[in-house]
This record gives sequence, structure tokens and C-alpha cells, in this order.
Amino acid sequence: MDRQKGIDYLFNPRSIAVIGASATRGKLGNDVLRNLVDSGYSGRIYPVNPRSGEILGMKVYRSISDIANSLDVAIIVIPAERVLEAVEECGKKGAKALVIITAGFKEIGHEGQEAEKKLIELAEKYEMVIQGPNCLGIINTSAPYNASFSAGTPRKGSIAFASQSGALMTGILDWSLMEKIGFSKFVSLGNKAHLDESDFIEAFGRDPDSTFILLYIESVVDGRKFMEVCRKVIPSKPIFVVKSGVSAAGARAASSHTGSLAGSDTAYDVAFKQCGVRRASNMAALFDVASVFDDMYLPSGNRVAIITNAGGPGILTTDACEASGLQIAKLSSETIEYLKKNLPPAASVFNPIDALGTAQPEDYALCVEASLSDENVDSVIVLLTPQAMTKESETAQVLVESHRKYPNKPLVAVFMGGNSMVYPRIILTEGGIPIFDFPERAVHAIAELYHYTISRDNLKHESIPSFKVDKKKVTEIIKAVKKDKRRVLLGSEAHAIAEAYGIPVARIRLATSSEEAKILAEELGYPVVLKIASPDIIHKSDIGGIRIGLESPDEVEDAFLQILDNVKAHMPNAMIYGVDVQEMVDQGKELIIGCSRDVQFGPLVMFGAGGIFVNFLKDVAFRLAPMTRSDASDVIMETKMGTLLKGVRGEVPSDITAIEDTILRISQLVTEYEEIVELDINPAFAYERGKGVSAVDVKITIGG
Amino acid sequence: MDRQKGIDYLFNPRSIAVIGASATRGKLGNDVLRNLVDSGYSGRIYPVNPRSGEILGMKVYRSISDIANSLDVAIIVIPAERVLEAVEECGKKGAKALVIITAGFKEIGHEGQEAEKKLIELAEKYEMVIQGPNCLGIINTSAPYNASFSAGTPRKGSIAFASQSGALMTGILDWSLMEKIGFSKFVSLGNKAHLDESDFIEAFGRDPDSTFILLYIESVVDGRKFMEVCRKVIPSKPIFVVKSGVSAAGARAASSHTGSLAGSDTAYDVAFKQCGVRRASNMAALFDVASVFDDMYLPSGNRVAIITNAGGPGILTTDACEASGLQIAKLSSETIEYLKKNLPPAASVFNPIDALGTAQPEDYALCVEASLSDENVDSVIVLLTPQAMTKESETAQVLVESHRKYPNKPLVAVFMGGNSMVYPRIILTEGGIPIFDFPERAVHAIAELYHYTISRDNLKHESIPSFKVDKKKVTEIIKAVKKDKRRVLLGSEAHAIAEAYGIPVARIRLATSSEEAKILAEELGYPVVLKIASPDIIHKSDIGGIRIGLESPDEVEDAFLQILDNVKAHMPNAMIYGVDVQEMVDQGKELIIGCSRDVQFGPLVMFGAGGIFVNFLKDVAFRLAPMTRSDASDVIMETKMGTLLKGVRGEVPSDITAIEDTILRISQLVTEYEEIVELDINPAFAYERGKGVSAVDVKITIGG
Repeated sequence: MDRQKGIDYLFNPRSIAVIGASATRGKLGNDVLRNLVDSGYSGRIYPVNPRSGEILGMKVYRSISDIANSLDVAIIVIPAERVLEAVEECGKKGAKALVIITAGFKEIGHEGQEAEKKLIELAEKYEMVIQGPNCLGIINTSAPYNASFSAGTPRKGSIAFASQSGALMTGILDWSLMEKIGFSKFVSLGNKAHLDESDFIEAFGRDPDSTFILLYIESVVDGRKFMEVCRKVIPSKPIFVVKSGVSAAGARAASSHTGSLAGSDTAYDVAFKQCGVRRASNMAALFDVASVFDDMYLPSGNRVAIITNAGGPGILTTDACEASGLQIAKLSSETIEYLKKNLPPAASVFNPIDALGTAQPEDYALCVEASLSDENVDSVIVLLTPQAMTKESETAQVLVESHRKYPNKPLVAVFMGGNSMVYPRIILTEGGIPIFDFPERAVHAIAELYHYTISRDNLKHESIPSFKVDKKKVTEIIKAVKKDKRRVLLGSEAHAIAEAYGIPVARIRLATSSEEAKILAEELGYPVVLKIASPDIIHKSDIGGIRIGLESPDEVEDAFLQILDNVKAHMPNAMIYGVDVQEMVDQGKELIIGCSRDVQFGPLVMFGAGGIFVNFLKDVAFRLAPMTRSDASDVIMETKMGTLLKGVRGEVPSDITAIEDTILRISQLVTEYEEIVELDINPAFAYERGKGVSAVDVKITIGG
Repeated sequence: MDRQKGIDYLFNPRSIAVIGASATRGKLGNDVLRNLVDSGYSGRIYPVNPRSGEILGMKVYRSISDIANSLDVAIIVIPAERVLEAVEECGKKGAKALVIITAGFKEIGHEGQEAEKKLIELAEKYEMVIQGPNCLGIINTSAPYNASFSAGTPRKGSIAFASQSGALMTGILDWSLMEKIGFSKFVSLGNKAHLDESDFIEAFGRDPDSTFILLYIESVVDGRKFMEVCRKVIPSKPIFVVKSGVSAAGARAASSHTGSLAGSDTAYDVAFKQCGVRRASNMAALFDVASVFDDMYLPSGNRVAIITNAGGPGILTTDACEASGLQIAKLSSETIEYLKKNLPPAASVFNPIDALGTAQPEDYALCVEASLSDENVDSVIVLLTPQAMTKESETAQVLVESHRKYPNKPLVAVFMGGNSMVYPRIILTEGGIPIFDFPERAVHAIAELYHYTISRDNLKHESIPSFKVDKKKVTEIIKAVKKDKRRVLLGSEAHAIAEAYGIPVARIRLATSSEEAKILAEELGYPVVLKIASPDIIHKSDIGGIRIGLESPDEVEDAFLQILDNVKAHMPNAMIYGVDVQEMVDQGKELIIGCSRDVQFGPLVMFGAGGIFVNFLKDVAFRLAPMTRSDASDVIMETKMGTLLKGVRGEVPSDITAIEDTILRISQLVTEYEEIVELDINPAFAYERGKGVSAVDVKITIGG
């Protein structure tokens, strides 16, 4: 069965069996059944337990096969060793979707992994979808039903939340009840043996009850699928994610610059960016955004009005806005005139609007409504400090009324205080206005929503360019290298591959004797460069393995012998294939263009400032291949080098189109040849506009 | 009177008069008097009001002079126009310290400014100190007394807090009562007409009841005094500050690179760093740190143990630790063995310690106590999610007991949840254990305390080096420039000043004719550089105003004429003084060394990567002058250029000592000549170790 169809059953089942239903309080099988009943599920419920009898007034079935009617969904809460059998029974019964709460699978090692493989086989055999195993369950507040062992059911709302950590989910649920945050769907992903985050994102995307998607993940199962699904959903719904495990993977061995500059988490960052997903830095920030979005429209721009009864908090808010990419709105002259007429003369009628410490609820009302109706304002932040004449609860009340009159513009309250803010807080949350203790989190949440609208609008649906290339040549070279049992290609091989993909390279030929070197130099034309050809030597210049600017046969002969001497002295055990003779190209701006390969997301292309200081400058940016022309243009402009290439201080611009072409051809190469695990062009020289680029040193490593 | 002595009276007055005491509820004069009584002040209280009578059972005095006994402190809450008179009366009465709550001074403009000047005169005449005007008042919880119009009195604690915003203070106070954060002193700075933040920091430093200093400021009155006082206090007490108004000043006009690269807030950042003050990015972070410090010792290192009942939160915490500069502690083998023996086999006994979802209070107790007693651990973070078998309150209770057994190590709780965490939260706060909703803020607070210990230990008390220099020469040049009514020095003048301060410069002479240019070139030795000499032309190379590598008299003559032609073509109205003839020095690594001047903190020295891309690379760092040798060494190493200068990839290191000398000589120059408002050496060439530096282009601007 199609996974999405399966999830439709999972979201709106006509009947649910609880396999492992229990009458004993404290057992998961009891928690699940009670949650199901308490949540007001209106479909049929079948408690299943070999002991039969009655639980919560419902008849208990000895086994699935005893159920007479059809069955949509089964929740499985029995010991791991009996799960496979139960799954098979569900399959035979024609169930459409299973939720396996039981733990003891992949997370316990090899045996559990094997069991999960069998789960997938059964899911396919019987055309079912499976959520879990090792999860908390699933909650749909609009069905409504709660098929989880959570303590309590979340409030109904528009946030769809999926989490890879069940325990985190219990904390969030408890917290959300206090903070009055509502959810449409609440999904515990568990081990993701069958249904994964992408399946649920796609389903949330189609779900009319969900307008906002939040995720907590530690990894994605299938990077490509994830990106594809997110790109589909983003235009209509925001997706915010906390991806943890940034520091977990640690440093990985890499022989290329690209490999060593791409951190273990870079591919996730790039993938999120390329598909418009916003990454939150922590759980609090994730839910701050959700709390502002819930019940609110998105800001249509970044212009914020700030209303306050004290100067200090106004300044703090202004600082936070500017740090988050929000602008302090320039109020319209009508608004300013109106405020002047209605506020005390000492008030500041420019943004931030300071209604003074004496500000009464009606003063707040007029400031807020003037701001909400001002076309120059995209969202409004209301600050309040508890001063002598401040009426906190009444002010909260007028904000709720103003919000009702102008519901389309985000309105956020920052009421700074503690005990005196308890009632105002209730009034505001019940009235659909998010409230914060301090300005910075409020500002950050609004900024995140604004940035989502920008990423959404920037998502382009361009096609991937396809260049005519000489694949036959590349296939031949790689085959020969594999036959030679090498992983690192010789310079001449790597250059030939780049050339076959239409990348302008400094021509290079392998010489195995000084005589041959002289002949090749003649052929390439003086001056030439000589470089040691050895897969074992990565940093050739450090050991005297390179000689440049050789002008004559005599110089070539000298250099040939000296390079071999140097190598013998410094790396006597290196495997030497000879010396590469390379044409000397004109100096240009030094670039690096490279690629490494990410386990989840595939080829990760890097662009940046090249040369010997690349690791030191770290002026690089990344994109996942295959890339569009906009991707190529964006990755260049994300670096400082990009600005330099456009030409600063009157310089002629570099040939940016040629650089984009080179990046795109590399993108095509690494997409078409999965064997290429690492690739560095460093340096590539960029010349003036119209004069192209030249790849000076190409290194390629292939995988096993 | 000495200000500190005055503050001693202010902190512990034997008697307090409230001038403007009122019997009417809602009036500030009533609030202040009631707070004074309610806070349990045990000294004598004198309500002062011309109407006399009785308030709160106390006799009201018609005027200060009616008070028979001596008077230490007067709180002034009368209309602004009568304040000066009251201050004079207090002076005559021999009061030691005044708190002027009344607003309507500097903040209303010129008239108020004049009144403040008179306040200062009176303070000096009668040897009093004055807090305010335009403030909330002062609270000392250990006296105890509350002489403010705040709603409520803070809990007693060890945090001294001073704030430039009174309204913010009211919010903080209200919030602190709910969060159970205690204060020793609570000072509203107001307009800082007399006593300023530095005075109170110094007093907090001496105060035995205060162990932690928090500040909210929008500016400092005297930058030098602030730094001096903080450097004195930091070794014994942490100072954390929120400085707002980052975005307020906007861009300022600057003709030098140094000026344009130093943002309006840079001097504050640098000043805080140079005196060991930690800057918090927002109010929440400020109080997070305080809540962890209150009752806790400082962490003696950055090694954190994490204890959890769920994997996800453990990963989030690990990520946050690594992002904040904290290390995941490597537990001792004894701890690991002990945990293995006492936890279920599926638990993870390595850090993060995962005691599993079934973890009971006793499991937490053994993990926490093992961590607290492990020498490899400097602080402990306990995570708890509300799972089926979790006992939140009992776990909170065992944490409090463990903390009592091992009070010396920071122990922080992150209980993720809402309603089910209400009681545990009370148990923990009452037990002196800070509690957070989500891991990141807890981690950040511990990290900040750790970083404070590092800044404290790094504070060196070195002397400022003093080089023998030719001040006479510099004074002469500046005098001549002033006489000429110029602000921008000619190249020859700027180079001569640098030379007079012992900085190796490329020699330069001004030629007013091509004949003179040839003679000077001969004198300096070929090859030479010619540069247009005009105070109006900043970017000389952009308009063809520079020619380099001139080898002969003919080339010099040609270049001279061509430069004048170019300038005429591009900037016909520029004032031309001639053409500078400069010796050509060997190319080295390009540095920029410069200085701009900050209103509050004085000369701000910049070091970084130089050349024409300096604004683009932005690889620069700053220090306030006068600088020590460590400052010079640190400012270099704060840049990427610093790493390059040490020599990467086998390069010979540059002459870092010579660069430090140049920076220190510049520091001395700009300290000794306040007229120098901007200075750029760009580029200065740095050569290999032992071969020094050379200032190639020196620009100096003097102030009016």
C-alpha cells in the first residue's frame, strides 16, 4: 500500500485494536487503552489480550483473529519477542497501519536489527504501514484519539509535531499543557523502521488540521526523500526542526580539503537551507516560534512596531530586532499624528512608541490599534513593566480585544515580571496572544517566522542543467584505477576526468623519465611545471615535490632529478609513478571547488577561497548536488570570495559564469559517478569576465 | 566626602528622612515610606512634609531643619522645582547621602541639565553623595531597608544589582520573587548625576553581603574609571552586564579604516574584555547566571557530567555543552565501575549517564553523588523527563539532599515539563538548586560562570611599557598642521611622527616639483614610489595617484607629471601639496595597525590583516590604549592573521616581537597625543623573525 494512504488510516482509523491491553494500572497496555477511551475516540476499540475478560467495560479479544469486523489500526504493546507474530496476525486480518510501542529492536543491537528487517518484510507483504517500534505512540487531536502512553492529551491546535525522542515528547506535552500550546498531531517516530520523518512530513503537509510542522530529529533516514518532501510542503506550511547530535559524530578522517572543512553536521545545515526548512538552535526556540504562529498569521515583512511603558526594555527590544534581521518600522505620518494627539506630550510617538510609565490600558489600546492598522508595520511587540500606575490585567484584556479587531498581523506581548503577571498571562494566552518574560525570545520568534517566509519565497523549482560530457573517458579512467587497486588518482588521471567533463584544466602529462619530461614540455609549450606523481604524497610543495616556471629542456631535466631526490629524502617509501609535466597557466584569483560525500545526503559540493591557506581562511560554502544554476550562483555569493569576484574597489569582475559552469559540471560529475568520494580542485584560477577559469590542480579519490 | 564613604552611609544609614512623605495611597511619597517601614528598617525614620501631622503612626516634620537629631540619608520625592532647595537644606543639616527619586532633570533637556550641574555643586559643597535623580530608589536586604517605590521587597540573597532603567528593575524584582532569586543590594542608578555605576561596583566589591554583581546599563559615565574599578573587583567577585543600545548610535562618519571597522559598540566589548567583565546578550541570560551562582560555588573547570533518564535530552545537552566551550567530563574508572554495579545493565554508565526511563529517585541519587564526588567532574547537570515511572518530586528531593552533601560543586536541574514540574520546581528552588525547562539555558549559565573564572585568572596586572620617543618632533609637526588649519596630515608628516615614536617606516619626502622629486629619489635610493600628497585624496590608488617601482630619474619625472595629470582629471578641486617620494621597501605580510577614539573609553587600537581588502576581510581585533605587552600579544592572536604570522605549513614565523613593539608604540603615541583622533598604518609589512616590520603608508587625522 502507498505509505500516505496508510498514514491516512493511521490518522483517522475507523477501528483500533490495542494488542497487549491490560487491566493493571501502571502497565503501558493499560495507559494506552485508557488514553484511547479518555481522548473521546469515537471509532471501535478492540482490547486484545490472551487472558480475555473485560477492561474498562470493554470486551477483551483473545487474539486479532477473534475480531469479527474489519480492523484499521493496531497498537502493539507486548514484549518484543511476540511482536513479529502479532504483526503477521494483523497483516492476515487486513489491518492498514500498526503502531509498535514495544522497545527492544534496533536499539539493542544485531538481533533487534534483524527483527526490524522482518517487520519491513511483513509490512510489504501485507501492505501495511508501521510506526515505530520503540515509540510513545500517536495522538490526533482532531480525530480525536490518543493512542500513546503519554500522561495526558495535548490541547487541540494547529501544530503537527514529530519527535525521534519519546521522552522528550512527554516533557514537551506536559509543558505545552501549562503553556497552552495546541497540537493537531503528535507523533513519536521511534526507530523509524518503516515510516520515517519524511512520510509524516508529507502527511502533515496534506493534513488540513495542521498549519505548522515541528520536528525533533537526531538523523534522517533518507536525505533525498526528506529534501524532496520538504520542498513540496514548504510553500504552504512552515517546517521548523531541532536536529541534535551536532557534536556526536566527531571529526572524521578526510584526505581532501573539502572533506576536512565539511563538519559532520554541514550536510544537514545545507539540506535544510536548500529545501527551505528552518533550523532552530534549541527546543525553547522551536516552541517559541510555534507559540507565536499558533492562531497568528505570518508577518508579511520584517518591519516591527514596539510599544512600551519604559525606555530600557524598548532599547533592549530594538537591539534584539536589529540582531535578528528585523527592522524598526517607520510609522506612517497618520499614525504619528494620531499618537501625538492622543498620548501625553512627553510620550515618544516614534517607534519604539513610549507611552510612559503612567500608560493606562486605553493608552495601550490606541497605540496597539494604530500600529496594527499601519501599513508600514508587519508585526507588533507590546512591552509592559509593572510600574506604580500599571494595570497589568486590564492591559492584557485590551490587547486581546485589539487582536480580535486586527487578527491578521502578529501581535506579541512581553510582560516583564513574575507574580503580578500570572493573571495577565492567562488572559493573553487564552486570548491567543503569545506572551514572553523578556524581549529577546519574542523578537527571535517573530524573526524566525519572517525568515521562513523568505526561504519559502526563495525556493525555486529550476531544472538541473545537464552538460554534454565524455562519460566513456571517465569510466575508462576509473576502471583502470580500480584495476590498479588505487584509491587516489594520479594528477594526469584527475585532470583528464575534469577535462572530459568540460572543465578548463591546465594540461598535464605523466613523464617517467627526464627524457620523456623534456618531450612533453616541448609539446605543452614552455614554461612548464613539474610535480611529483604519487598517490601517497598529498602536500607536494611541502617536501619540494613541485618546481614551477621551467623555461628550457635543461631546467626541466634538472627539476625532474631534483624532485626525485627531494622525494627520496623526505618520503623514501612513497610509491612514485613518475613526474607530472603541466602547462603553466596565468595566475588568477585562487579558488577551491571540491566535493565530499555525506552518508545521508550524498555529494556535498564546496566552493570558496583557494590556495595553500584554504584551511586557514575557511571562506567556503556548501551545496548538495545535483545543483541548479541558482544554487551555483548562491554558493559563490555566500562566500567573501564571491564579493571579491564581483570586483571591489574598481577591479574588473571575474568570469562568474565560467565559475558557475565549473561548479555545475563538478556537480554533474559527482552525481553521475558515485565512486568519486572526494574531489578537490585547488587552486582553480578565475580570470576576468569573458576569460574563463583554469583548474590548476585536481585531486580525486574513489571509494572501494 | 569620599564617595565610597558616602555609599557606606547609603547602604547602612542610622537614620532616614523621606522628603515628600505622603499619607495618600498611590503617591510615591507614600509608597517609599511604607516600603521603609514594611522592610523592617530599624533606624530612625523622619517623614518630612510641610503639612505636618502623622503618617503610618509617625510624626511628620515640616522641614529637615525641624529634625533634632543627626541625619544620615534623605530620600527625596517632591516635585523637581523644589528639589534643589531640599538638597541645600539636607546639606546644611549634615546629611551624608541623598536618593533623589524625583524625575524631570537631564531627561527633559537643557533646563534639567543645568539643575543637575547644581546638584553636583551642592553635593560637593556639603560633602554628600547623591543617587539619581530620576530613579526608583535603593534597597539593601541585609540592613534591611527598602527606600524605593517598588512593589514589594526582594528576597535576601547575595546578588548586588544596579540598573540604569528603573522600570526594568520593577519587572526584574517582580520576576525574582516568583523565581526565588535573592538580592543583597538593589540600586536604581537613574540619571547618574553624581554617583555612577563605577561607584556602586566599587561599593559592591567591598560589601561582604554581595558575592555577585549584575548590571543593566545603557552607557557608562567614565570609561577609564569603570575599567579601573572592575579590574579591582573582578578577582574576588564576578561582574555580569547587559549593555543595551548596541544599535542605537548607528553608523558614524569615519575617514579611516580603523574608524569604519570599529562599530559604535566595539569599545564597550573591548573594555569589558580588558577588565574581565562578562557581557550577557540578554536579561534572561543575565539572571540565569545569577540563579546558578546564588548559593553555588563557581565551577573549578569546564568538565560537565550529564545525568538523564532519556537519550534525546542527553544529546541536546551534549551539543549545547560543546557549543558553549564546556567539555563532557571523562568519568573516573571508579565512578564508572560504581555505576555499572548499581545501575541496570542497559543503562549507559559513560557520560552522559543514561539511567533509563525507569530511573527512580535512588538511581538519580547514586548517579548524582558519584558525579559530584568524582574529581574529573566540575559541574553536574541533571535531566529529567516525566515518563511513566518517573517520580518528579521525590527525585527533586534527593537532588536537594545530594547538593547538601556536596555543596561545593555546581548542580543544575533541567526538569522538562510543565504542570507536573510545579512541585519539583518549588522543592528544587527552595533547596538552592537552580532549575530550567530546557537544557540550553542551564548549559549557558554554567558556561558563563566557567568563562568568568577564566577571564578572572587571565587578568594580569602588568605595567604599561614606556618607550623613549621624540615628543618634541611630534609636537612641532602637529602644531604646524594646526597652524595650517588642516586635520589630515600629509604623508611626510605622518611618517615623520611614526618615525619619532620609533616605528620603522618607509622613508618619505615631499617634492613640489619633478626636479625636487628626482633629487629626493637619488637621496632615498632607487627604486622609489611616488604618491600624490593631498589631504583631500583618501584612496590614492583608485585615481592613479600612486606609481611604484620607479628605477631612474626619467621614470620619476614621467611619474610625477602623470600623477598630477591623473589627479587633475579625477579630482580637479583637490588641494595638492605636491608628490611624496617614498623609498620602496621589500614586500612582507600586509598588516593594518590603527587607532580611532571612543567617546567613553578613549583611544581604541586596531590590529589585523591589511592591504586594500581590509574592509572586506574584516580580520581585525581591538584593544583600548594604553596597552600592556600581553594586550599587544593578545590582539595579534585574536586575528586569523596572528596564526599566519606564527607560520603555517612550514613557513618561517614573522617578527611578532617587532609587531608588538609597533602596536605598543602606537598605543603610547595616541595616549600621549589626544589630538590624534584617527590613525591608520596600512599596510605595514611584517618580515621574518628578526627582520622587523616596515610601515609603508601612515595616515593621521587630528581633532579640532
